[in-house]
Amino acid sequence: MARVSFYLDGEVVEIDVEQGATLLEAASRTGVYLNSLCGGEGICGTCKVLVKDGQIEHGSIGLLTKEEAKEGYVLACQTKVLGDVKVEVPLETRIEEGQILIDKDAEKLHTIRAGGEEVFFAREPLLDKLYLELPKPSLDDNLSDHQRLYREIRSKKKVPILHTGLTMLQGIPAILRNNEWAVTVTLGVKGDTTELLQVEGGDTSGKNYGIAVDIGTSTVVVHLVDLNSSKTIDGEAKYNSQMKYGEDVTRRIIHADEEGPEELHSLIMDDINGLISTLIFRNKVRRDDITSVICSGNTTMLHFLLNLPASWIRKTPYVSASASPPPIRATEVGIKINPRGLLYVVPMIGGWVGGDTTAGGLACGINKSERLTLLIDIGTNGEILIGNKDWMITCSASAGPAFEGMGAESGMRASRGAIEHVTMIDGRIEYSTIGDGKPKGICGSGLIDLVAELFKAGLVDRRGVLDPRKSDRIRERDSQSEFVMVPGSETETGKDIVITQPDIENLLRAKAAIYAGVNILVKSLGLEFGDFERILIAGGFGSYLDRRKTQILGLIPDIPLERIKFVGNTSIIGAKMALLSREAFTTCHRMAESVTYVDLISFPNYYDEFMAALFLPHTDLERFPTITEELSQEV
Amino acid sequence: MARVSFYLDGEVVEIDVEQGATLLEAASRTGVYLNSLCGGEGICGTCKVLVKDGQIEHGSIGLLTKEEAKEGYVLACQTKVLGDVKVEVPLETRIEEGQILIDKDAEKLHTIRAGGEEVFFAREPLLDKLYLELPKPSLDDNLSDHQRLYREIRSKKKVPILHTGLTMLQGIPAILRNNEWAVTVTLGVKGDTTELLQVEGGDTSGKNYGIAVDIGTSTVVVHLVDLNSSKTIDGEAKYNSQMKYGEDVTRRIIHADEEGPEELHSLIMDDINGLISTLIFRNKVRRDDITSVICSGNTTMLHFLLNLPASWIRKTPYVSASASPPPIRATEVGIKINPRGLLYVVPMIGGWVGGDTTAGGLACGINKSERLTLLIDIGTNGEILIGNKDWMITCSASAGPAFEGMGAESGMRASRGAIEHVTMIDGRIEYSTIGDGKPKGICGSGLIDLVAELFKAGLVDRRGVLDPRKSDRIRERDSQSEFVMVPGSETETGKDIVITQPDIENLLRAKAAIYAGVNILVKSLGLEFGDFERILIAGGFGSYLDRRKTQILGLIPDIPLERIKFVGNTSIIGAKMALLSREAFTTCHRMAESVTYVDLISFPNYYDEFMAALFLPHTDLERFPTITEELSQEV
Repeated sequence: MARVSFYLDGEVVEIDVEQGATLLEAASRTGVYLNSLCGGEGICGTCKVLVKDGQIEHGSIGLLTKEEAKEGYVLACQTKVLGDVKVEVPLETRIEEGQILIDKDAEKLHTIRAGGEEVFFAREPLLDKLYLELPKPSLDDNLSDHQRLYREIRSKKKVPILHTGLTMLQGIPAILRNNEWAVTVTLGVKGDTTELLQVEGGDTSGKNYGIAVDIGTSTVVVHLVDLNSSKTIDGEAKYNSQMKYGEDVTRRIIHADEEGPEELHSLIMDDINGLISTLIFRNKVRRDDITSVICSGNTTMLHFLLNLPASWIRKTPYVSASASPPPIRATEVGIKINPRGLLYVVPMIGGWVGGDTTAGGLACGINKSERLTLLIDIGTNGEILIGNKDWMITCSASAGPAFEGMGAESGMRASRGAIEHVTMIDGRIEYSTIGDGKPKGICGSGLIDLVAELFKAGLVDRRGVLDPRKSDRIRERDSQSEFVMVPGSETETGKDIVITQPDIENLLRAKAAIYAGVNILVKSLGLEFGDFERILIAGGFGSYLDRRKTQILGLIPDIPLERIKFVGNTSIIGAKMALLSREAFTTCHRMAESVTYVDLISFPNYYDEFMAALFLPHTDLERFPTITEELSQEV
Repeated sequence: MARVSFYLDGEVVEIDVEQGATLLEAASRTGVYLNSLCGGEGICGTCKVLVKDGQIEHGSIGLLTKEEAKEGYVLACQTKVLGDVKVEVPLETRIEEGQILIDKDAEKLHTIRAGGEEVFFAREPLLDKLYLELPKPSLDDNLSDHQRLYREIRSKKKVPILHTGLTMLQGIPAILRNNEWAVTVTLGVKGDTTELLQVEGGDTSGKNYGIAVDIGTSTVVVHLVDLNSSKTIDGEAKYNSQMKYGEDVTRRIIHADEEGPEELHSLIMDDINGLISTLIFRNKVRRDDITSVICSGNTTMLHFLLNLPASWIRKTPYVSASASPPPIRATEVGIKINPRGLLYVVPMIGGWVGGDTTAGGLACGINKSERLTLLIDIGTNGEILIGNKDWMITCSASAGPAFEGMGAESGMRASRGAIEHVTMIDGRIEYSTIGDGKPKGICGSGLIDLVAELFKAGLVDRRGVLDPRKSDRIRERDSQSEFVMVPGSETETGKDIVITQPDIENLLRAKAAIYAGVNILVKSLGLEFGDFERILIAGGFGSYLDRRKTQILGLIPDIPLERIKFVGNTSIIGAKMALLSREAFTTCHRMAESVTYVDLISFPNYYDEFMAALFLPHTDLERFPTITEELSQEV
């Protein structure tokens, strides 16, 4: 027997195995999850681990680089244990299916990779840099500078249709000659063509960065990505400044119709540019080394981004100006990166359902999965995507920003200082905050937990009404009830963290809108919730959502918890996958074109379903049998 | 027997033929030239004629349209004569091989078609307009405006890669709705892709114009082309305003190196824009209906056009910044047409040999011909192209602007009022002027004729020296000899039209440069002039060049006249062919890449050859045996 010790970010898990067992087998017996896309064939390289010490027998190194092999990385599936061995498991090898990228609070960001079950795409960033050393011209080889450069690029990379602009051609001769014919070219994917968009002297290929943006109705998230390593370096988020012109997209479109779209466009530009500036300052990245931006978001947000007319999105039959805008120069809309850098938009599905849902489908691998999947993306609009690799259908439910912490008395975004989880045990409240410091407020996941716990404890009734008789933490202020969760003495701001009666009602309306939408779509397809092999919950929450508590709230149907997974902000995960893989971006386009869009308003019973869902967990308790049973036992 | 009467633009040619003969046979017996690309197979449609009256037996109508058939057009090769018949021969059917477009004085312009022997390209203008009536969106069909438009375009035309810009997408929704979903789109070819560059309300497809430009070192020619009918509507030319910075391209490049290229760029822009303005005013064409410009010219001129650095063209190994610049927006360099219209550049071959030679090769169908051809394009630079469909080789000889009427005392461009032909019979001078009015000056073809006639008459000797003893028209003025061709009393200006001793010497230097280049290139290939099945002379002359007189001058080798053809300004003819046919433009690119460029300076005997050619017709009379014999008989 030999002892294998797995080192997992501080934690150590040990197991004794017989000699000759593979590291993958050892890991699986401990319950340590290792990625293994190829199923142990030694091909994919996703199960890579670092052997720190001990006796092993090497096998194939699959897709590992020589550098990695030198450093001691091996494939767990191909490496046999000969004696005691210490193995470090890198973060990217441990990322669980469906948790490809958990964007905790956008301050703790992980390596991005296309994970999930069948989700695996060839790495080929939409913007690529190539270092070239050109042969100098001679009488026997006096091609023009332009053609010489193209010839060299094509000797290195397959680019059937290569094009460039006049400004480039005007500058190339001097750049080539001033740098002894050694230059780095930046190539950008534009559909089936490739643009030569930059030529720099010398070898600058090591510095190539991209920006991924998720423009939510309430929240804007920006990530900085290293296009060479595929790693997310950092992220930052803020509320969408357009909020002052309305919490929902409809009001903003009306504002644009009346006052022109410029102000809304300009606000989102300022948000994105502000976040980019923060990231490049914090990470000491040169703005000119950022060659690309990819934006995901709902249809309306992406229209405002591009200054496209959004008027007709809100009127039947909900027609967008463009569902798949072409790549353009980012500066054309005012995004401040390399002046010749490109802006990509994740293609939209149609009607209210935008690029965020396309990105979500991509990130969760629904388009490649045999398994029937329900994806619920919880945001100010709740998008619902149902399907598998053969078909997909989607709709959008208007929830309002309650789950994004907006509007609640002590609400805040899922960022440092936000209470993200709440447990009540015997009237005692325990909570955790993002960043582990003193709490500043409470974010969406914390609000969900809190309402569920209040309900379980009987402090609110099925209608969500706080009962002051049940706790002295429930008080009356300005003629409305509120529950004091954390007294000001324990908070960073010195103010009490509370949840008010209207806060609870907002949350109930939001969950009812989403639950009703999910239920109607599922039923209209003749399905039951039990038919889903996976129910994936996406959204810009903290580290995770407590699945059981979302069921107690009545947001998520009452099905066995193991089928439910929280998958984080799939909009930005999918956007990054597209930015890092031309194949993934192409897949987005195919998906966006093939998904069927339905409008909830066309279902006459939507309003009734909504009203019925305004209770905890629902008017019809038979829909939540295990919750009902659990609660009846507790009380 | 039956009488066939051919009506040819005023002239009538009649012939009696036996019944059953075809119209093509009848025409060939009269010497009336009819195009017949397919050799009488009834396939190509190029021999179409209009039967006005008489008995015929119909055959295949080949590529004729139904409308044409209805109007009475038939294929001459497929139509048998049964009785007396009157036949009108349209201009395009009569255009002779190699004379596809004789741009007389750019005021008399003909229909363009790709003619010549095997030269035939599918009509598909680089800029095309399509009228579309789109289905209105509905809940069942709520594609975005962008995708709806693409779908409709693709239902009408094969455009695998279609792209457009942000400005277009921003404007499309309103245009579609303000015009009841009936719009005209403008599509522009960009390599293997197609750009949607304009959407107009209603049906504007009838108005689609292009501009073809030949930027010569000395002369700028602009034609206005109807892209629907493929007809040249009008043309206009002027001297290149860059002349003030040097007669030859080398001096202009040096000027650009020293002072920056902006002034030279700006001058050529003004020339082109001025000529375009004249044409659109004269022909009442809306500037916005001009959707494209195509420019041909030598390498340096095309570099100045695009503001590309030209410095390295003049230094060994003669490298251009770009030999095949991509299509760009014409406004990007300052050409004033439709603001979204495209500028195409005829691809250059390399070194000094530019798009004018590519266009020339295209216009003369050298790339499709079995026959070994020598093309001499006479301009300020003389370009020489030798080859056939299997191989081509080219070089450039610096002649100076003498043949363009520049620098000569009474010289002028081949435009209205220029003496274009001169004959001396027994000391009496006969001449013809362009436009048939009083002469204002003398253009290149007139100068060639005049020197040849003066030499034949013994008024100049073999060195080109005027002999005042031989004619009282030879006088001394400002201590130089000159021959008075037309006294001021007969000229429009009131000034004598003369040729001075320096004028003659300039012409001799120009012809010597070109003849030496041709001779060196031919000899270096191990060829004799007799090996050429066709010798084509191109240039911006008047209606034609007198071939015999170019031989007397020693410009063109002494080979049988029937092998020599004057083919006009092939630079602009080829450019127009490319503008009217995507296939032709593609052919230009292939040709430009495959032609071999040689530099005359690399031939050490070039200077000796040049010196030997400074005589009339040449130092070595054995090279011009028939001329020598003819002159010895006359004298």
